[in-house]
Amino acid sequence: MKVHEIQAYLERFFNSVELVGDGDALIEGPAKIENATEGQVSFVANEKYVRFLGSTRASLLIVGEKAPIGEYSDRLAFLKVKDPYTAFVFVLQLFSSPRRVACEGIARTAVLGDKVSMGANVSVGEHAVIGDGCIVGDNTVIGAHTVLMNGVRIGRDCCLFPGVVCYDGTVLGDRVVLHSGAVIGADGFGFAPQPDGSYMKIPQMGIVEIRDDVEIGANSTVDRATMGSTVVEKGAKIDNLVQIGHNCMIGENTVIASQAGISGSVSVGRNCLIGGQAGFAGHLSLPERTTVAARAGVTKSSDLPGQSLGGFPAQSLRSQFRQEALVRNLGRMKERLEALEAELTELKRL
Amino acid sequence: MKVHEIQAYLERFFNSVELVGDGDALIEGPAKIENATEGQVSFVANEKYVRFLGSTRASLLIVGEKAPIGEYSDRLAFLKVKDPYTAFVFVLQLFSSPRRVACEGIARTAVLGDKVSMGANVSVGEHAVIGDGCIVGDNTVIGAHTVLMNGVRIGRDCCLFPGVVCYDGTVLGDRVVLHSGAVIGADGFGFAPQPDGSYMKIPQMGIVEIRDDVEIGANSTVDRATMGSTVVEKGAKIDNLVQIGHNCMIGENTVIASQAGISGSVSVGRNCLIGGQAGFAGHLSLPERTTVAARAGVTKSSDLPGQSLGGFPAQSLRSQFRQEALVRNLGRMKERLEALEAELTELKRL
Amino acid sequence: MKVHEIQAYLERFFNSVELVGDGDALIEGPAKIENATEGQVSFVANEKYVRFLGSTRASLLIVGEKAPIGEYSDRLAFLKVKDPYTAFVFVLQLFSSPRRVACEGIARTAVLGDKVSMGANVSVGEHAVIGDGCIVGDNTVIGAHTVLMNGVRIGRDCCLFPGVVCYDGTVLGDRVVLHSGAVIGADGFGFAPQPDGSYMKIPQMGIVEIRDDVEIGANSTVDRATMGSTVVEKGAKIDNLVQIGHNCMIGENTVIASQAGISGSVSVGRNCLIGGQAGFAGHLSLPERTTVAARAGVTKSSDLPGQSLGGFPAQSLRSQFRQEALVRNLGRMKERLEALEAELTELKRL
Repeated sequence: MKVHEIQAYLERFFNSVELVGDGDALIEGPAKIENATEGQVSFVANEKYVRFLGSTRASLLIVGEKAPIGEYSDRLAFLKVKDPYTAFVFVLQLFSSPRRVACEGIARTAVLGDKVSMGANVSVGEHAVIGDGCIVGDNTVIGAHTVLMNGVRIGRDCCLFPGVVCYDGTVLGDRVVLHSGAVIGADGFGFAPQPDGSYMKIPQMGIVEIRDDVEIGANSTVDRATMGSTVVEKGAKIDNLVQIGHNCMIGENTVIASQAGISGSVSVGRNCLIGGQAGFAGHLSLPERTTVAARAGVTKSSDLPGQSLGGFPAQSLRSQFRQEALVRNLGRMKERLEALEAELTELKRL
Repeated sequence: MKVHEIQAYLERFFNSVELVGDGDALIEGPAKIENATEGQVSFVANEKYVRFLGSTRASLLIVGEKAPIGEYSDRLAFLKVKDPYTAFVFVLQLFSSPRRVACEGIARTAVLGDKVSMGANVSVGEHAVIGDGCIVGDNTVIGAHTVLMNGVRIGRDCCLFPGVVCYDGTVLGDRVVLHSGAVIGADGFGFAPQPDGSYMKIPQMGIVEIRDDVEIGANSTVDRATMGSTVVEKGAKIDNLVQIGHNCMIGENTVIASQAGISGSVSVGRNCLIGGQAGFAGHLSLPERTTVAARAGVTKSSDLPGQSLGGFPAQSLRSQFRQEALVRNLGRMKERLEALEAELTELKRL
Repeated sequence: MKVHEIQAYLERFFNSVELVGDGDALIEGPAKIENATEGQVSFVANEKYVRFLGSTRASLLIVGEKAPIGEYSDRLAFLKVKDPYTAFVFVLQLFSSPRRVACEGIARTAVLGDKVSMGANVSVGEHAVIGDGCIVGDNTVIGAHTVLMNGVRIGRDCCLFPGVVCYDGTVLGDRVVLHSGAVIGADGFGFAPQPDGSYMKIPQMGIVEIRDDVEIGANSTVDRATMGSTVVEKGAKIDNLVQIGHNCMIGENTVIASQAGISGSVSVGRNCLIGGQAGFAGHLSLPERTTVAARAGVTKSSDLPGQSLGGFPAQSLRSQFRQEALVRNLGRMKERLEALEAELTELKRL
């Protein structure tokens, strides 16, 4: 692909894409700026990477509108755009070949239950199992070995990688991506303590609903509600090994990093960012645009949108940083205390 | 189902179930009190929910014997019991339809090894694999895609959801529930460091034994012992994404919440509660009725039953709370220290 | 097997293996010293276990060259070696029967794609799925239900337990062991925020490369690189439920314990030890021989090899311990502060 073809492609997304250099140079694929070789395209979106401008062997760089390219444009081509990071994501999409997650059509070894409704152009991989009464929308791809228990409903253009399990009654929207090992709709963790110290299982009669454009990582678990639904709203992105407890509500476009754990009945607002290994006590709610730092432990609800929380028990990130600084200086504080004690003893002796 | 039928059902479990209101009202299912609509049953077990008595649209509430229902009994029916929470769990069970985890009988696509012994009325789902010499008890259900390696023994009335793996030699008791993605009996993490910096694998020759009435959540892992057995005792309940290391002993009726990690050779007594994301150093033991708070990191053994531990390194919850309060007040303490320094300077100047 | 046969076997690995006692005693298997019965072999590598010398019922003990065995050698046999721990690992290997992870040859129910290249003596278990263009080396065992997506390359003498998923393009070296539920090569967690608050997926176009002699635990996840490769170097050992983010480099012979999480683009040097539930912020690098304590949260790079880090934010273990001691003594510090205030008030009153 030539540089000016990439330019034309980006002009579909950006008002202005300015070419500096040879529009006819041939580009074969993307690479990181420090690894790129001739024929590759890379990008600079961050000040820190400007230092690679002189040394990169890439043939094309996507850069910001004010990037200091003057001196380098003899050697390689540049495309200047307002948001070079997003532009490069488009370039990655341009070069990414469509992935074959499952064979075309329904694999011979797949098992379909009774009263299954399949949309047009659905792929079902080898040994996949689709339970009774499942509904699968157009163009959806179901990987090898993925299991849909009875009555699962899946929208269109979804991709379930190999080895996903959706328990009975799970509902997925459109364009949902579930990675291998994700378990959607397993029983919530509910047991009633009995006088003899044993536990009685509380039937988990609800379901999980995953809305449009959600992506869920490998080996993550989203539990079904006791009654009603556990809901992951449109556009939420969930990383690997995340736990979402029963009856949670995860807001639209909220991002949850790896190994975070959301206890039962927690409600997280829209556009929140939850860091890796963060944890939540049960029955909390956080409003929209809350940021929870990695490894924070949230123990109470908040109703102030846009706050940043950190530490355990979680507090405002500002208080948390101040507290951490005080703790780190405890040795010094102790010395000052000892100095005071000595001085006072001295003073009293006089 | 009519209210008086629910009353009769609960009278099988409670000495006294008092009806207030219309015993002929028709009940179609359970719901949370704040979401319930006409024809639904809900409950109040907690003071906090008394406020919904006036506004709920439920047709029946299960309440405590002293619940203040007088003013509301014109509008809806009540059943008064000693333990409304447990009573409602029975009601949930009453309305929960039996779940179909696998087809009846042995699926045509299941693969059974040599010398497999199957009890009466066993279900084996599509593509399940049962290794040589496995023994499966009466009424047990093995989900689609579940794999039993060689020599696995399973009791009666168990339910293994789709996609479970039991390594060779695993022993399960009766009424054990394993959720999708649970891996039982994988090798313990044992490697002997060699002089050249590499590691030699220590053969993991033991097994895992899971006793009666244990439930293990989705994507949890219980490792086989190096020698002997890793044991999860009767009635223990383990949530999703929990790690149980090799040679652990988890006591009867102990509950372990999501993402907790129990290192190798840890012994946890009976009736303990382990919070989410808690961690244990190896080779510890905790006595019965110990409570470990969420996210606590237990670094040493205890022999005092019934203690509550929290923090990292874990200490008594009381000490932990006191410590947290002191840390949160460090800013104030520093101010007081500075005030003292100023005063003393002043005093010395006089 | 007789004691002198075990002696002869160990002499293949150690210069000197001294027998004290009856070389003709019959040994049937290994056991822990406190559980061993007649006919079993155990070991003492640690001072703490010397106390079992008098009470053990084992028939043979592997001990250090200076072990105080004099008084006990009438009752049982001893083999004295320089490193009894490693010697016992060899003994375990001697008694461990080879595990049957899959049937011999290619199971009838396995599905092989187009252009698959199989080495000699490969085993492929029931219902396994091998994608188009995969290459599998000699003697490799692929468990039931394991899925290799297209273009996966696996070396020789590997063992993939049942229910592993390797995404397209994954490369495994020789003697790699992957436990059940491990997901290798799922998409890295990369999304570009858009002005409307939604996220655009960044195509994850790279792969995962796992080098020789790596072992990865059950339900762990190693994400593919955005561009290039996520690499786990030769001999690294990774426990269960560990997350390795996209573009990470895990060094040779580095050990990572259960539930640790390594964010994207982290580089960990060789011969490091990462404790359980430890976490790493993204884009860090740690040099060789770094030890990260369990539950530590590493927030910045280090370039000092051989350091021990702990706490969150992680600092040198020594500073962390000092800090923990200061925090635990805060109550006492507060009392001293209050005493000073009282004394000063008193002093000023005079």
